[in-house]
Amino acid sequence: MAKIILSVNAGSSSVKISVYSAEQGQEPKELAETQIDGLTAPPPQLKYTRGERTVCKDKKLEEKISSQNDAFKYMLDQLIGDKDFPAISKKEDIAIVCHRVVHGGDYETPQIINEDTYHHLEALTDLAPLHNASALEIVKFLIKEMPDTRNVAVFDSEFHQTIPEHIRTYPIDQEIAKKNKLRKYGFHGISYSFITRSVAQYLGKKESETSLIVLHLGSGASACAIKNGKSWDTSMGLTPLAGLPGATRSGSVDPSLVFHYATNVGKLSPSSTESLHISRAEEILNKEAGWKSLTGTTNFGVIASSDEPKMKLAFDIFLDRILGYIGSYYVTLNGKVDALVFAGGIGEKSDLLRRRVAEETACLGFEVDDELNKKQIKDVVQSVGKKGAKHGLLVCQTNEQFEMARYCAIDEKLFG
Amino acid sequence: MAKIILSVNAGSSSVKISVYSAEQGQEPKELAETQIDGLTAPPPQLKYTRGERTVCKDKKLEEKISSQNDAFKYMLDQLIGDKDFPAISKKEDIAIVCHRVVHGGDYETPQIINEDTYHHLEALTDLAPLHNASALEIVKFLIKEMPDTRNVAVFDSEFHQTIPEHIRTYPIDQEIAKKNKLRKYGFHGISYSFITRSVAQYLGKKESETSLIVLHLGSGASACAIKNGKSWDTSMGLTPLAGLPGATRSGSVDPSLVFHYATNVGKLSPSSTESLHISRAEEILNKEAGWKSLTGTTNFGVIASSDEPKMKLAFDIFLDRILGYIGSYYVTLNGKVDALVFAGGIGEKSDLLRRRVAEETACLGFEVDDELNKKQIKDVVQSVGKKGAKHGLLVCQTNEQFEMARYCAIDEKLFG
Repeated sequence: MAKIILSVNAGSSSVKISVYSAEQGQEPKELAETQIDGLTAPPPQLKYTRGERTVCKDKKLEEKISSQNDAFKYMLDQLIGDKDFPAISKKEDIAIVCHRVVHGGDYETPQIINEDTYHHLEALTDLAPLHNASALEIVKFLIKEMPDTRNVAVFDSEFHQTIPEHIRTYPIDQEIAKKNKLRKYGFHGISYSFITRSVAQYLGKKESETSLIVLHLGSGASACAIKNGKSWDTSMGLTPLAGLPGATRSGSVDPSLVFHYATNVGKLSPSSTESLHISRAEEILNKEAGWKSLTGTTNFGVIASSDEPKMKLAFDIFLDRILGYIGSYYVTLNGKVDALVFAGGIGEKSDLLRRRVAEETACLGFEVDDELNKKQIKDVVQSVGKKGAKHGLLVCQTNEQFEMARYCAIDEKLFG
Repeated sequence: MAKIILSVNAGSSSVKISVYSAEQGQEPKELAETQIDGLTAPPPQLKYTRGERTVCKDKKLEEKISSQNDAFKYMLDQLIGDKDFPAISKKEDIAIVCHRVVHGGDYETPQIINEDTYHHLEALTDLAPLHNASALEIVKFLIKEMPDTRNVAVFDSEFHQTIPEHIRTYPIDQEIAKKNKLRKYGFHGISYSFITRSVAQYLGKKESETSLIVLHLGSGASACAIKNGKSWDTSMGLTPLAGLPGATRSGSVDPSLVFHYATNVGKLSPSSTESLHISRAEEILNKEAGWKSLTGTTNFGVIASSDEPKMKLAFDIFLDRILGYIGSYYVTLNGKVDALVFAGGIGEKSDLLRRRVAEETACLGFEVDDELNKKQIKDVVQSVGKKGAKHGLLVCQTNEQFEMARYCAIDEKLFG
């Protein structure tokens, strides 16, 4: 029997709900999608599509919506109240809500959330205070208000549990590392899972025989080396801060930098520098750095199309760091790379970035096809590489919402 | 007329003095070398060679030598008092003392130290409190006690002033970055300068046409991409902490890590974590991490030759991070690489590491010659690569002491 599954993605300033109908063991079918943006820059804006039909877009909301949970409740009421959407006419019609949770610690699979796992998830929030909290707020609401609905946590870190010990270990005191769970976890895993399966299908290969370098480039950006279908290395670390820079994130910097950044005097000696609290330091590097700090905008499209020196600098910095990971992962995969895959908003949209990456990695055997590269990306996987090149060059329209719903539909235990 | 030049290298637990005779515009000739080790693990030990003759080695000193300046004074008295070393019979015989200073900020060339530059150097110490202080202590002593001797500061960062803006810029608030001078500086530059010139000579090429990936692997380790004879990128950053791990240094880690490391409770939420002072945080990552924290030893020879799991893990971590930089720099140089060069104590001695690096980078065209690789390294530059391979594989016995003296001898203004 078909069940209704909601995939919920609570970001730092937006919440997205996708509604699926699924039978056990089958791929879920999308019925509707709704999203509220601009939580940190009011007024919030609503987007709602039902199947092929756009019900509303960029609709400014007058209601007071100040948290991710407020946004979730607003959209839930809207779905239930929509007379033209019979799939959900009451709360009880929703069988499963799956939640994207950024940091899953050592969890290797999605988890049904009960009292026990909820408390474990709460504890994990300490490793990723900026990232897990809003998802958990929504889970808490659902446990209380919709006790008959099953909540499933899907983790952005679980795909990376296969990263080998010598890559995930930091060369620091191992007793403290174990006690405080300090190691590379990696994120964007739901996306990498979708991409790996989709690209393997596209290439007509088994996942277990597919090796890729994948770039998930959005306002948060990361790179991943996929070896025989599994994560072998990724650029994010203990938290999503490490690796590539993003819209408001510095990415990897000298680990000493933040201490020198936060000084309140010109003189930087230890004795004249204020102590810096963890929450403030992480906030600076996660929320007040990246493109925003270099250019004033978080919109990479604006950056890529501008000739202003500060925009060009931001573009060149991003390109340089991306090239670094491609070279690094090319070696870690010993050159056995089926394709370089671009994904995420920037990866899908910036043909300029794709062309520049290909030009600079020609020495590894990547080649762009200018005509293909300029076409709109319509397929789930679409080639932008030159025929006959040593390695493929692909774009993948990743779909984290679908991937989460798919986990719940495919897995008998989660589907219930 | 020939002058006596002393090159002084004050490390964290040792001081080394090399004595040269030099005529202006000529390469300096080494007359003697003396070194005190074990300043942080008493008793201190003395090594002294005069030309080909080893006067003493591993001699335990009973004198109280607790600072780098104490060690310097001890060796200075010894050189002056040595009847068999007529080159220096009184303080006034020493024309120039050049000092290796780790962090040179924006300095692009060696500097004669006068009142002004001394104070500027003191201010720079704030950017590198763990690294500049001991050299400055010795400079201070010399200015006071040997006013007729010229002091020259040679900076480990100056070779990297050519790193382009998009590589040296951190994606953080640029106003604060400029005010607090936060950017990639890079270190080991005196060594990279020596290596670039020596390898270009060995290859029979102009420096300006020589492009290399160089690994300076000692208890401090870094990598450098040399493009047409100039530094294009390097793995260390604002401070020597970023990049490769070392004997007691973590290298690059998630910039959030240290906050989670330093917590004194199991729960890591911002509100339950103690504030962490800059000096303590930098100390943890610079002095209490690296091989030492993984294995208990700082001796890479022991690590490389052991089958113990923790030793193997440390070896594999180092190899993995090195491979990452080789791949990254291969791309940033667009594959135009004359040779991969190993230097530093580990680079010279570990034929196993060299072989493993070559095996893993075969996809880029590096190939080791097993017979050449097992030979002792006797020349300044020696090949360990297979004939006919796409790129060279070399070992260079770097010589920072010589390079510093050479700067002073070649440059009319410094020679005086």
